[in-house]
Amino acid sequence: MAKQKKGQAADQGGLLEQLRVPSGPVDLSKYDTRATPGFSGTKDEGKVALASLGDELSDWQERLFAEGRKGAERSILLVLQGMDTAGKGGVIRHGAGLMDPQGLKITSFKAPTAAEKRRGFLWRIKQALPDPGIIGIFDRSHYEDVLIARVRSLVAPPVWNRRYGQINDFEAELAASGVTVLKCFLHISAEEQKARLEARLDDPTKHWKYNPGDVDERAHWPAYMEAYEAALERCNTPEAPWLVIPSDRKWYRNWAVTAILLETLKTLNPEWPKADFDVETEKQRLAAT
Amino acid sequence: MAKQKKGQAADQGGLLEQLRVPSGPVDLSKYDTRATPGFSGTKDEGKVALASLGDELSDWQERLFAEGRKGAERSILLVLQGMDTAGKGGVIRHGAGLMDPQGLKITSFKAPTAAEKRRGFLWRIKQALPDPGIIGIFDRSHYEDVLIARVRSLVAPPVWNRRYGQINDFEAELAASGVTVLKCFLHISAEEQKARLEARLDDPTKHWKYNPGDVDERAHWPAYMEAYEAALERCNTPEAPWLVIPSDRKWYRNWAVTAILLETLKTLNPEWPKADFDVETEKQRLAAT
Repeated sequence: MAKQKKGQAADQGGLLEQLRVPSGPVDLSKYDTRATPGFSGTKDEGKVALASLGDELSDWQERLFAEGRKGAERSILLVLQGMDTAGKGGVIRHGAGLMDPQGLKITSFKAPTAAEKRRGFLWRIKQALPDPGIIGIFDRSHYEDVLIARVRSLVAPPVWNRRYGQINDFEAELAASGVTVLKCFLHISAEEQKARLEARLDDPTKHWKYNPGDVDERAHWPAYMEAYEAALERCNTPEAPWLVIPSDRKWYRNWAVTAILLETLKTLNPEWPKADFDVETEKQRLAAT
Repeated sequence: MAKQKKGQAADQGGLLEQLRVPSGPVDLSKYDTRATPGFSGTKDEGKVALASLGDELSDWQERLFAEGRKGAERSILLVLQGMDTAGKGGVIRHGAGLMDPQGLKITSFKAPTAAEKRRGFLWRIKQALPDPGIIGIFDRSHYEDVLIARVRSLVAPPVWNRRYGQINDFEAELAASGVTVLKCFLHISAEEQKARLEARLDDPTKHWKYNPGDVDERAHWPAYMEAYEAALERCNTPEAPWLVIPSDRKWYRNWAVTAILLETLKTLNPEWPKADFDVETEKQRLAAT
Protein backbone atom coordinates (compact mmCIF):
# COMPACT_ATOMS: atom_id res chain seq x y z
CA MET A 1 0.00 0.00 0.00
CA ALA A 2 1.48 3.33 -1.06
CA LYS A 3 2.48 5.70 1.65
CA GLN A 4 0.45 8.88 1.56
CA LYS A 5 2.31 11.66 -0.20
CA LYS A 6 2.66 14.92 1.62
CA GLY A 7 0.30 17.59 0.42
CA GLN A 8 -2.13 15.15 -1.09
CA ALA A 9 -5.60 14.24 -0.02
CA ALA A 10 -5.62 11.35 2.41
CA ASP A 11 -8.50 9.77 0.56
CA GLN A 12 -9.97 12.32 -1.77
CA GLY A 13 -12.55 9.87 -3.00
CA GLY A 14 -14.20 9.88 0.39
CA LEU A 15 -13.92 13.52 1.37
CA LEU A 16 -17.64 14.10 1.03
CA GLU A 17 -18.35 11.23 3.41
CA GLN A 18 -15.68 12.49 5.78
CA LEU A 19 -17.08 16.03 6.01
CA ARG A 20 -20.71 15.05 6.01
CA VAL A 21 -22.61 15.84 9.19
CA PRO A 22 -23.73 12.63 10.98
CA SER A 23 -27.48 12.43 11.54
CA GLY A 24 -28.78 13.51 14.91
CA PRO A 25 -28.11 16.57 17.06
CA VAL A 26 -25.24 18.83 15.99
CA ASP A 27 -22.80 20.54 18.35
CA LEU A 28 -20.73 23.00 16.31
CA SER A 29 -18.41 23.72 19.25
CA LYS A 30 -17.10 20.18 18.85
CA TYR A 31 -15.76 20.99 15.37
CA ASP A 32 -12.24 22.38 15.07
CA THR A 33 -12.48 25.30 12.67
CA ARG A 34 -8.72 25.13 12.00
CA ALA A 35 -8.68 21.43 11.13
CA THR A 36 -7.83 20.17 7.65
CA PRO A 37 -9.56 16.78 7.42
CA GLY A 38 -8.55 14.77 4.39
CA PHE A 39 -5.50 16.92 3.69
CA SER A 40 -2.02 16.56 5.10
CA GLY A 41 0.26 19.32 3.97
CA THR A 42 1.09 22.99 4.22
CA LYS A 43 -0.75 26.05 3.00
CA ASP A 44 1.45 26.26 -0.09
CA GLU A 45 0.87 22.59 -0.82
CA GLY A 46 -2.84 23.20 -0.40
CA LYS A 47 -2.80 25.96 -2.97
CA VAL A 48 -0.93 23.76 -5.42
CA ALA A 49 -3.37 20.92 -4.75
CA LEU A 50 -6.31 23.23 -5.52
CA ALA A 51 -4.79 24.44 -8.79
CA SER A 52 -4.06 20.85 -9.79
CA LEU A 53 -7.78 20.03 -9.65
CA GLY A 54 -8.51 22.52 -12.43
CA ASP A 55 -8.06 20.39 -15.54
CA GLU A 56 -9.93 17.38 -14.25
CA LEU A 57 -12.71 19.55 -12.87
CA SER A 58 -13.14 21.38 -16.18
CA ASP A 59 -13.23 18.12 -18.07
CA TRP A 60 -15.99 16.65 -15.92
CA GLN A 61 -17.85 19.93 -15.95
CA GLU A 62 -17.85 19.90 -19.74
CA ARG A 63 -19.18 16.35 -19.80
CA LEU A 64 -22.06 17.35 -17.53
CA PHE A 65 -22.69 20.40 -19.73
CA ALA A 66 -22.58 18.28 -22.89
CA GLU A 67 -25.08 15.71 -21.65
CA GLY A 68 -27.35 18.58 -20.56
CA ARG A 69 -27.28 19.95 -24.10
CA LYS A 70 -28.34 16.56 -25.42
CA GLY A 71 -31.40 16.04 -23.23
CA ALA A 72 -30.09 14.72 -19.90
CA GLU A 73 -31.65 16.46 -16.92
CA ARG A 74 -28.94 16.35 -14.30
CA SER A 75 -27.42 19.36 -12.61
CA ILE A 76 -25.59 20.20 -9.39
CA LEU A 77 -26.57 22.77 -6.79
CA LEU A 78 -23.90 23.83 -4.33
CA VAL A 79 -25.30 25.81 -1.41
CA LEU A 80 -22.75 27.91 0.48
CA GLN A 81 -23.63 29.18 3.93
CA GLY A 82 -21.54 30.69 6.68
CA MET A 83 -21.14 33.71 8.92
CA ASP A 84 -19.87 36.97 7.40
CA THR A 85 -16.26 36.64 6.18
CA ALA A 86 -16.48 32.82 6.23
CA GLY A 87 -15.46 32.86 2.58
CA LYS A 88 -18.45 32.10 0.37
CA GLY A 89 -17.12 34.53 -2.20
CA GLY A 90 -13.59 33.18 -1.84
CA VAL A 91 -14.70 29.63 -2.61
CA ILE A 92 -16.45 30.85 -5.76
CA ARG A 93 -13.51 32.95 -6.87
CA HIS A 94 -10.80 30.37 -6.26
CA GLY A 95 -12.69 27.09 -6.65
CA ALA A 96 -15.51 27.71 -9.11
CA GLY A 97 -13.14 30.08 -10.89
CA LEU A 98 -11.23 26.99 -12.08
CA MET A 99 -14.21 25.99 -14.22
CA ASP A 100 -15.66 27.28 -17.47
CA PRO A 101 -17.97 30.18 -16.52
CA GLN A 102 -20.39 29.08 -19.28
CA GLY A 103 -21.34 26.04 -17.20
CA LEU A 104 -21.87 27.93 -13.96
CA LYS A 105 -24.87 29.80 -12.60
CA ILE A 106 -23.97 31.79 -9.52
CA THR A 107 -26.62 33.53 -7.45
CA SER A 108 -25.95 35.75 -4.48
CA PHE A 109 -29.01 36.21 -2.25
CA LYS A 110 -29.43 39.47 -0.37
CA ALA A 111 -32.29 40.41 1.96
CA PRO A 112 -35.51 39.62 0.08
CA THR A 113 -37.50 42.49 -1.40
CA ALA A 114 -41.13 43.09 -0.45
CA ALA A 115 -42.22 41.58 -3.78
CA GLU A 116 -40.12 38.47 -3.14
CA LYS A 117 -41.47 38.06 0.39
CA ARG A 118 -45.05 38.12 -0.85
CA ARG A 119 -44.30 35.10 -3.04
CA GLY A 120 -43.07 32.88 -0.19
CA PHE A 121 -39.45 32.31 0.79
CA LEU A 122 -38.78 29.55 -1.77
CA TRP A 123 -40.04 31.45 -4.83
CA ARG A 124 -36.88 33.40 -5.57
CA ILE A 125 -34.79 30.30 -4.87
CA LYS A 126 -36.71 28.37 -7.53
CA GLN A 127 -36.08 31.17 -10.05
CA ALA A 128 -32.34 30.67 -9.58
CA LEU A 129 -32.10 26.89 -9.98
CA PRO A 130 -29.53 25.60 -12.47
CA ASP A 131 -30.69 24.30 -15.85
CA PRO A 132 -29.71 20.75 -16.88
CA GLY A 133 -25.96 20.37 -17.27
CA ILE A 134 -25.21 23.46 -15.18
CA ILE A 135 -23.49 23.76 -11.82
CA GLY A 136 -25.50 26.19 -9.73
CA ILE A 137 -23.89 27.91 -6.77
CA PHE A 138 -25.85 29.77 -4.11
CA ASP A 139 -24.01 32.38 -2.06
CA ARG A 140 -26.51 32.31 0.84
CA SER A 141 -29.82 30.63 0.16
CA HIS A 142 -33.22 29.61 1.54
CA TYR A 143 -31.36 28.76 4.75
CA GLU A 144 -31.22 32.45 5.60
CA ASP A 145 -34.96 32.06 6.19
CA VAL A 146 -34.23 29.79 9.17
CA LEU A 147 -31.05 31.61 10.21
CA ILE A 148 -31.25 35.41 10.30
CA ALA A 149 -35.05 35.14 10.16
CA ARG A 150 -34.96 33.07 13.37
CA VAL A 151 -32.15 34.91 15.17
CA ARG A 152 -33.46 38.39 14.45
CA SER A 153 -37.15 37.42 14.76
CA LEU A 154 -37.99 38.57 11.24
CA VAL A 155 -40.95 36.18 11.33
CA ALA A 156 -42.85 34.56 14.20
CA PRO A 157 -41.50 31.25 15.61
CA PRO A 158 -44.27 29.08 14.12
CA VAL A 159 -43.37 30.47 10.70
CA TRP A 160 -39.65 29.72 10.79
CA ASN A 161 -40.31 26.47 12.59
CA ARG A 162 -42.50 25.26 9.72
CA ARG A 163 -39.81 26.10 7.17
CA TYR A 164 -37.49 23.19 8.02
CA GLY A 165 -40.06 20.74 6.71
CA GLN A 166 -40.80 22.93 3.70
CA ILE A 167 -37.11 23.00 2.89
CA ASN A 168 -36.84 19.21 3.17
CA ASP A 169 -39.82 18.76 0.84
CA PHE A 170 -38.35 21.23 -1.63
CA GLU A 171 -34.89 19.65 -1.63
CA ALA A 172 -36.39 16.16 -2.03
CA GLU A 173 -38.26 17.41 -5.10
CA LEU A 174 -35.03 18.84 -6.46
CA ALA A 175 -33.21 15.56 -5.98
CA ALA A 176 -36.05 13.68 -7.66
CA SER A 177 -35.84 15.99 -10.67
CA GLY A 178 -32.12 15.36 -11.18
CA VAL A 179 -30.48 18.06 -9.09
CA THR A 180 -27.64 16.86 -6.87
CA VAL A 181 -27.81 19.10 -3.84
CA LEU A 182 -24.70 19.76 -1.73
CA LYS A 183 -24.86 22.07 1.25
CA CYS A 184 -21.64 23.38 2.76
CA PHE A 185 -21.46 25.25 6.04
CA LEU A 186 -18.20 27.22 6.03
CA HIS A 187 -17.37 27.09 9.71
CA ILE A 188 -15.17 29.81 11.21
CA SER A 189 -14.56 30.78 14.82
CA ALA A 190 -15.71 34.10 16.24
CA GLU A 191 -12.03 35.01 16.75
CA GLU A 192 -11.21 34.35 13.12
CA GLN A 193 -14.12 36.53 12.02
CA LYS A 194 -12.83 39.32 14.21
CA ALA A 195 -9.38 39.07 12.63
CA ARG A 196 -10.88 39.13 9.14
CA LEU A 197 -13.07 42.15 9.88
CA GLU A 198 -10.00 43.93 11.33
CA ALA A 199 -8.12 43.14 8.14
CA ARG A 200 -10.94 44.65 6.09
CA LEU A 201 -10.85 47.81 8.16
CA ASP A 202 -7.08 48.05 7.76
CA ASP A 203 -7.18 47.79 3.95
CA PRO A 204 -8.84 50.62 1.97
CA THR A 205 -9.32 48.27 -1.01
CA LYS A 206 -11.52 46.13 1.28
CA HIS A 207 -13.65 48.87 2.80
CA TRP A 208 -16.42 48.29 0.28
CA LYS A 209 -16.88 44.81 1.73
CA TYR A 210 -17.29 46.09 5.27
CA ASN A 211 -20.68 46.80 6.74
CA PRO A 212 -21.07 48.27 10.24
CA GLY A 213 -24.00 45.89 10.71
CA ASP A 214 -21.48 43.01 10.70
CA VAL A 215 -20.27 44.11 14.13
CA ASP A 216 -23.82 44.22 15.46
CA GLU A 217 -24.42 40.68 14.23
CA ARG A 218 -21.40 39.45 16.21
CA ALA A 219 -23.36 40.02 19.42
CA HIS A 220 -25.72 37.28 18.23
CA TRP A 221 -22.99 34.73 17.49
CA PRO A 222 -24.27 32.07 19.95
CA ALA A 223 -27.82 32.43 18.62
CA TYR A 224 -26.52 32.01 15.06
CA MET A 225 -24.63 28.86 16.02
CA GLU A 226 -27.81 27.51 17.60
CA ALA A 227 -29.77 28.30 14.43
CA TYR A 228 -27.10 26.64 12.26
CA GLU A 229 -27.16 23.58 14.52
CA ALA A 230 -30.92 23.33 14.09
CA ALA A 231 -30.67 23.64 10.30
CA LEU A 232 -27.81 21.13 10.12
CA GLU A 233 -29.82 18.67 12.19
CA ARG A 234 -33.30 19.13 10.80
CA CYS A 235 -32.42 19.50 7.11
CA ASN A 236 -29.71 16.87 6.87
CA THR A 237 -31.31 14.38 4.50
CA PRO A 238 -29.79 11.61 2.39
CA GLU A 239 -30.86 13.49 -0.77
CA ALA A 240 -29.41 16.81 0.36
CA PRO A 241 -26.69 16.32 2.97
CA TRP A 242 -25.01 19.02 5.01
CA LEU A 243 -21.23 19.21 5.19
CA VAL A 244 -19.19 21.18 7.68
CA ILE A 245 -16.09 22.72 6.11
CA PRO A 246 -13.55 23.94 8.67
CA SER A 247 -12.85 27.40 7.27
CA ASP A 248 -10.39 29.25 9.45
CA ARG A 249 -7.77 28.24 6.90
CA LYS A 250 -8.84 29.76 3.61
CA TRP A 251 -6.67 27.49 1.49
CA TYR A 252 -8.17 24.37 3.06
CA ARG A 253 -11.72 25.67 2.66
CA ASN A 254 -11.16 26.40 -1.03
CA TRP A 255 -9.52 23.05 -1.67
CA ALA A 256 -12.12 21.05 0.27
CA VAL A 257 -15.21 22.49 -1.40
CA THR A 258 -13.60 22.17 -4.83
CA ALA A 259 -12.51 18.58 -4.18
CA ILE A 260 -16.08 17.76 -3.10
CA LEU A 261 -17.45 19.24 -6.32
CA LEU A 262 -15.00 17.10 -8.30
CA GLU A 263 -15.92 14.01 -6.30
CA THR A 264 -19.60 14.68 -6.95
CA LEU A 265 -19.03 15.10 -10.69
CA LYS A 266 -17.12 11.81 -10.78
CA THR A 267 -19.93 10.04 -8.95
CA LEU A 268 -22.45 11.38 -11.46
CA ASN A 269 -20.05 10.14 -14.13
CA PRO A 270 -21.56 12.00 -17.11
CA GLU A 271 -20.52 10.52 -20.44
CA TRP A 272 -19.81 12.28 -23.70
CA PRO A 273 -23.06 12.14 -25.67
CA LYS A 274 -23.13 9.74 -28.60
CA ALA A 275 -23.47 11.26 -32.07
CA ASP A 276 -27.13 11.66 -33.11
CA PHE A 277 -26.05 11.72 -36.78
CA ASP A 278 -24.07 9.39 -39.02
CA VAL A 279 -20.43 10.39 -38.70
CA GLU A 280 -19.29 8.99 -42.07
CA THR A 281 -22.16 10.64 -43.95
CA GLU A 282 -21.31 13.95 -42.35
CA LYS A 283 -17.63 13.61 -43.22
CA GLN A 284 -18.59 13.13 -46.87
CA ARG A 285 -21.06 15.99 -46.87
CA LEU A 286 -18.46 18.27 -45.29
CA ALA A 287 -15.74 17.17 -47.72
CA ALA A 288 -18.01 18.17 -50.59
CA THR A 289 -18.24 21.77 -49.40
CA MET B 1 13.15 53.64 -26.06
CA ALA B 2 12.95 49.99 -25.05
CA LYS B 3 13.15 47.44 -27.79
CA GLN B 4 9.96 45.45 -28.12
CA LYS B 5 10.28 42.12 -26.31
CA LYS B 6 9.38 39.04 -28.24
CA GLY B 7 5.99 37.64 -27.35
CA GLN B 8 4.70 40.89 -26.01
CA ALA B 9 2.03 43.15 -27.32
CA ALA B 10 3.42 45.76 -29.68
CA ASP B 11 1.31 48.43 -28.06
CA GLN B 12 -1.30 46.78 -25.93
CA GLY B 13 -2.73 50.11 -24.87
CA GLY B 14 -3.94 50.71 -28.40
CA LEU B 15 -5.15 47.27 -29.41
CA LEU B 16 -8.79 48.32 -29.40
CA GLU B 17 -8.03 51.17 -31.77
CA GLN B 18 -5.95 48.85 -33.95
CA LEU B 19 -8.69 46.23 -34.33
CA ARG B 20 -11.53 48.65 -34.63
CA VAL B 21 -13.33 48.67 -37.96
CA PRO B 22 -12.87 52.00 -39.79
CA SER B 23 -16.10 53.76 -40.64
CA GLY B 24 -17.46 53.26 -44.14
CA PRO B 25 -17.98 50.15 -46.29
CA VAL B 26 -16.43 46.92 -45.01
CA ASP B 27 -14.75 44.31 -47.19
CA LEU B 28 -14.07 41.26 -45.03
CA SER B 29 -12.04 39.56 -47.77
CA LYS B 30 -9.41 42.24 -47.21
CA TYR B 31 -8.81 41.03 -43.65
CA ASP B 32 -6.21 38.29 -43.10
CA THR B 33 -7.86 35.78 -40.76
CA ARG B 34 -4.44 34.37 -39.78
CA ALA B 35 -2.93 37.72 -38.85
CA THR B 36 -1.91 38.58 -35.28
CA PRO B 37 -2.09 42.38 -35.14
CA GLY B 38 -0.55 43.83 -32.01
CA PHE B 39 1.24 40.63 -31.08
CA SER B 40 4.65 39.47 -32.18
CA GLY B 41 5.45 36.03 -30.93
CA THR B 42 4.69 32.35 -31.17
CA LYS B 43 1.63 30.36 -30.16
CA ASP B 44 3.28 29.32 -26.90
CA GLU B 45 4.23 32.88 -26.15
CA GLY B 46 0.65 33.90 -26.91
CA LYS B 47 -0.68 31.43 -24.38
CA VAL B 48 1.74 32.69 -21.74
CA ALA B 49 0.78 36.28 -22.57
CA LEU B 50 -2.91 35.43 -22.09
CA ALA B 51 -2.33 33.75 -18.72
CA SER B 52 -0.23 36.71 -17.60
CA LEU B 53 -3.24 39.03 -18.03
CA GLY B 54 -5.18 37.12 -15.35
CA ASP B 55 -4.13 38.91 -12.19
CA GLU B 56 -4.45 42.40 -13.58
CA LEU B 57 -7.77 41.57 -15.22
CA SER B 58 -9.20 40.14 -11.97
CA ASP B 59 -8.05 43.18 -10.06
CA TRP B 60 -9.75 45.63 -12.41
CA GLN B 61 -12.82 43.44 -12.59
CA GLU B 62 -13.13 43.54 -8.80
CA ARG B 63 -12.83 47.32 -8.81
CA LEU B 64 -15.68 47.58 -11.31
CA PHE B 65 -17.71 45.12 -9.22
CA ALA B 66 -16.98 47.06 -6.03
CA GLU B 67 -18.06 50.41 -7.44
CA GLY B 68 -21.23 48.72 -8.74
CA ARG B 69 -22.03 47.55 -5.24
CA LYS B 70 -21.68 51.08 -3.96
CA GLY B 71 -24.03 52.79 -6.38
CA ALA B 72 -22.03 53.37 -9.56
CA GLU B 73 -23.92 52.40 -12.70
CA ARG B 74 -21.20 51.33 -15.08
CA SER B 75 -20.94 47.92 -16.68
CA ILE B 76 -19.40 46.33 -19.77
CA LEU B 77 -21.13 44.36 -22.49
CA LEU B 78 -18.96 42.23 -24.75
CA VAL B 79 -20.83 40.96 -27.80
CA LEU B 80 -19.24 37.95 -29.51
CA GLN B 81 -20.29 37.11 -33.04
CA GLY B 82 -18.82 34.78 -35.63
CA MET B 83 -19.52 31.86 -37.89
CA ASP B 84 -19.87 28.38 -36.32
CA THR B 85 -16.57 27.20 -34.80
CA ALA B 86 -15.17 30.76 -34.82
CA GLY B 87 -14.58 30.34 -31.10
CA LYS B 88 -17.14 32.35 -29.14
CA GLY B 89 -17.15 29.64 -26.48
CA GLY B 90 -13.38 29.37 -26.53
CA VAL B 91 -12.94 33.06 -25.80
CA ILE B 92 -15.29 32.77 -22.84
CA ARG B 93 -13.61 29.64 -21.50
CA HIS B 94 -10.03 30.83 -21.86
CA GLY B 95 -10.40 34.61 -21.58
CA ALA B 96 -13.41 35.29 -19.36
CA GLY B 97 -12.39 32.16 -17.41
CA LEU B 98 -9.47 34.17 -16.02
CA MET B 99 -11.92 36.37 -14.12
CA ASP B 100 -14.04 35.87 -11.03
CA PRO B 101 -17.28 34.21 -12.20
CA GLN B 102 -19.24 36.26 -9.64
CA GLY B 103 -18.65 39.38 -11.73
CA LEU B 104 -19.66 37.83 -15.06
CA LYS B 105 -23.04 37.38 -16.68
CA ILE B 106 -22.82 35.13 -19.71
CA THR B 107 -25.76 34.63 -22.03
CA SER B 108 -25.86 32.29 -24.98
CA PHE B 109 -28.61 33.11 -27.46
CA LYS B 110 -30.24 30.28 -29.42
CA ALA B 111 -33.03 30.58 -31.98
CA PRO B 112 -35.75 32.69 -30.37
CA THR B 113 -38.88 30.97 -29.08
CA ALA B 114 -42.31 31.92 -30.33
CA ALA B 115 -42.94 33.81 -27.09
CA GLU B 116 -39.69 35.74 -27.51
CA LYS B 117 -40.46 36.60 -31.12
CA ARG B 118 -43.81 38.07 -30.18
CA ARG B 119 -42.04 40.56 -27.90
CA GLY B 120 -39.76 41.99 -30.58
CA PHE B 121 -36.18 40.97 -31.25
CA LEU B 122 -34.62 43.23 -28.61
CA TRP B 123 -36.81 42.11 -25.72
CA ARG B 124 -34.83 39.03 -24.74
CA ILE B 125 -31.59 40.94 -25.21
CA LYS B 126 -32.72 43.54 -22.68
CA GLN B 127 -33.53 40.79 -20.18
CA ALA B 128 -29.91 39.66 -20.32
CA LEU B 129 -28.13 43.00 -19.85
CA PRO B 130 -25.48 43.13 -17.12
CA ASP B 131 -26.26 44.86 -13.83
CA PRO B 132 -23.97 47.69 -12.66
CA GLY B 133 -20.44 46.46 -11.94
CA ILE B 134 -20.90 43.31 -14.02
CA ILE B 135 -19.19 42.26 -17.24
CA GLY B 136 -21.86 40.85 -19.52
CA ILE B 137 -20.88 38.57 -22.37
CA PHE B 138 -23.21 37.65 -25.23
CA ASP B 139 -22.49 34.46 -27.17
CA ARG B 140 -24.46 35.53 -30.24
CA SER B 141 -26.82 38.46 -29.81
CA HIS B 142 -29.35 40.77 -31.45
CA TYR B 143 -27.03 40.71 -34.48
CA GLU B 144 -28.40 37.29 -35.38
CA ASP B 145 -31.55 39.20 -36.26
CA VAL B 146 -29.71 40.90 -39.13
CA LEU B 147 -27.51 37.89 -39.96
CA ILE B 148 -29.29 34.52 -40.11
CA ALA B 149 -32.61 36.36 -40.29
CA ARG B 150 -31.41 38.14 -43.44
CA VAL B 151 -29.49 35.27 -45.05
CA ARG B 152 -32.20 32.67 -44.47
CA SER B 153 -35.11 35.10 -45.08
CA LEU B 154 -36.64 34.48 -41.65
CA VAL B 155 -38.30 37.88 -41.96
CA ALA B 156 -39.11 40.10 -44.96
CA PRO B 157 -36.38 42.49 -46.20
CA PRO B 158 -38.08 45.65 -44.90
CA VAL B 159 -38.13 44.09 -41.43
CA TRP B 160 -34.44 43.21 -41.20
CA ASN B 161 -33.54 46.40 -42.99
CA ARG B 162 -35.24 48.46 -40.29
CA ARG B 163 -33.37 46.62 -37.55
CA TYR B 164 -29.98 48.28 -38.16
CA GLY B 165 -31.38 51.60 -37.03
CA GLN B 166 -33.22 49.98 -34.13
CA ILE B 167 -29.98 48.38 -33.01
CA ASN B 168 -28.13 51.69 -33.20
CA ASP B 169 -30.80 53.41 -31.12
CA PHE B 170 -30.72 50.60 -28.59
CA GLU B 171 -26.94 50.58 -28.26
CA ALA B 172 -26.84 54.38 -27.95
CA GLU B 173 -29.32 54.08 -25.06
CA LEU B 174 -27.12 51.45 -23.46
CA ALA B 175 -24.05 53.66 -23.73
CA ALA B 176 -25.96 56.60 -22.26
CA SER B 177 -27.00 54.47 -19.27
CA GLY B 178 -23.42 53.48 -18.44
CA VAL B 179 -22.89 50.31 -20.44
CA THR B 180 -19.63 50.18 -22.40
CA VAL B 181 -20.48 48.13 -25.47
CA LEU B 182 -17.76 46.21 -27.34
CA LYS B 183 -18.63 44.10 -30.35
CA CYS B 184 -16.15 41.54 -31.62
CA PHE B 185 -16.50 39.70 -34.90
CA LEU B 186 -14.38 36.56 -34.65
CA HIS B 187 -13.29 36.27 -38.26
CA ILE B 188 -12.32 32.84 -39.62
CA SER B 189 -11.86 31.65 -43.17
CA ALA B 190 -14.19 29.09 -44.75
CA GLU B 191 -11.21 26.71 -44.97
CA GLU B 192 -10.47 27.03 -41.27
CA GLN B 193 -14.12 26.30 -40.46
CA LYS B 194 -13.95 23.19 -42.58
CA ALA B 195 -10.85 21.99 -40.71
CA ARG B 196 -12.53 22.63 -37.36
CA LEU B 197 -15.70 20.80 -38.33
CA GLU B 198 -13.56 17.87 -39.54
CA ALA B 199 -11.79 17.84 -36.19
CA ARG B 200 -15.15 17.71 -34.41
CA LEU B 201 -16.22 14.76 -36.52
CA ASP B 202 -12.93 12.98 -35.80
CA ASP B 203 -13.22 13.32 -32.02
CA PRO B 204 -16.07 11.50 -30.23
CA THR B 205 -15.76 13.89 -27.27
CA LYS B 206 -16.65 16.71 -29.69
CA HIS B 207 -19.62 15.08 -31.42
CA TRP B 208 -22.10 16.83 -29.13
CA LYS B 209 -20.92 20.14 -30.56
CA TYR B 210 -21.55 19.08 -34.15
CA ASN B 211 -24.80 19.83 -35.90
CA PRO B 212 -25.47 18.59 -39.45
CA GLY B 213 -27.08 21.97 -40.10
CA ASP B 214 -23.59 23.53 -39.83
CA VAL B 215 -22.68 21.96 -43.18
CA ASP B 216 -25.84 23.32 -44.81
CA GLU B 217 -25.00 26.82 -43.56
CA ARG B 218 -21.59 26.62 -45.26
CA ALA B 219 -23.33 26.86 -48.64
CA HIS B 220 -24.41 30.35 -47.59
CA TRP B 221 -20.93 31.55 -46.59
CA PRO B 222 -20.78 34.46 -49.11
CA ALA B 223 -24.26 35.64 -48.07
CA TYR B 224 -23.21 35.53 -44.41
CA MET B 225 -20.09 37.58 -45.15
CA GLU B 226 -22.26 40.11 -46.97
CA ALA B 227 -24.63 40.26 -43.99
CA TYR B 228 -21.69 40.71 -41.59
CA GLU B 229 -20.27 43.46 -43.78
CA ALA B 230 -23.61 45.27 -43.66
CA ALA B 231 -23.81 44.95 -39.87
CA LEU B 232 -20.20 46.04 -39.41
CA GLU B 233 -20.80 49.06 -41.59
CA ARG B 234 -24.26 50.14 -40.51
CA CYS B 235 -23.92 49.49 -36.76
CA ASN B 236 -20.38 50.77 -36.25
CA THR B 237 -20.98 53.74 -33.99
CA PRO B 238 -18.62 55.66 -31.70
CA GLU B 239 -20.64 54.45 -28.69
CA ALA B 240 -20.62 50.81 -29.74
CA PRO B 241 -17.73 50.07 -32.10
CA TRP B 242 -17.19 46.87 -34.06
CA LEU B 243 -13.85 45.11 -33.91
CA VAL B 244 -12.62 42.42 -36.28
CA ILE B 245 -10.59 39.75 -34.46
CA PRO B 246 -8.59 37.55 -36.84
CA SER B 247 -9.52 34.14 -35.44
CA ASP B 248 -7.90 31.38 -37.45
CA ARG B 249 -5.31 31.23 -34.66
CA LYS B 250 -7.20 30.37 -31.51
CA TRP B 251 -4.45 31.57 -29.18
CA TYR B 252 -4.38 35.00 -30.82
CA ARG B 253 -8.15 35.31 -30.73
CA ASN B 254 -8.26 34.48 -27.01
CA TRP B 255 -5.43 36.84 -26.18
CA ALA B 256 -6.78 39.72 -28.30
CA VAL B 257 -10.31 39.73 -26.91
CA THR B 258 -9.00 39.42 -23.36
CA ALA B 259 -6.46 42.20 -23.85
CA ILE B 260 -9.24 44.41 -25.21
CA LEU B 261 -11.37 43.72 -22.14
CA LEU B 262 -8.43 44.66 -19.93
CA GLU B 263 -7.79 47.81 -21.95
CA THR B 264 -11.46 48.77 -21.60
CA LEU B 265 -11.42 48.23 -17.84
CA LYS B 266 -8.33 50.40 -17.53
CA THR B 267 -9.97 53.14 -19.56
CA LEU B 268 -13.03 53.03 -17.29
CA ASN B 269 -10.56 53.21 -14.40
CA PRO B 270 -12.94 52.21 -11.59
CA GLU B 271 -11.67 53.20 -8.16
CA TRP B 272 -12.02 51.35 -4.88
CA PRO B 273 -15.06 52.88 -3.18
CA LYS B 274 -14.35 55.14 -0.22
CA ALA B 275 -15.58 53.97 3.19
CA ASP B 276 -19.13 55.16 3.93
CA PHE B 277 -18.47 54.71 7.67
CA ASP B 278 -15.90 56.05 10.11
CA VAL B 279 -13.00 53.61 10.08
CA GLU B 280 -11.66 54.46 13.57
CA THR B 281 -15.10 54.18 15.17
CA GLU B 282 -15.59 50.79 13.58
CA LYS B 283 -12.19 49.57 14.75
CA GLN B 284 -13.14 50.48 18.30
CA ARG B 285 -16.59 48.91 18.06
CA LEU B 286 -15.06 45.73 16.64
CA ALA B 287 -12.34 45.63 19.31
CA ALA B 288 -15.05 45.73 21.97
CA THR B 289 -16.67 42.50 20.70
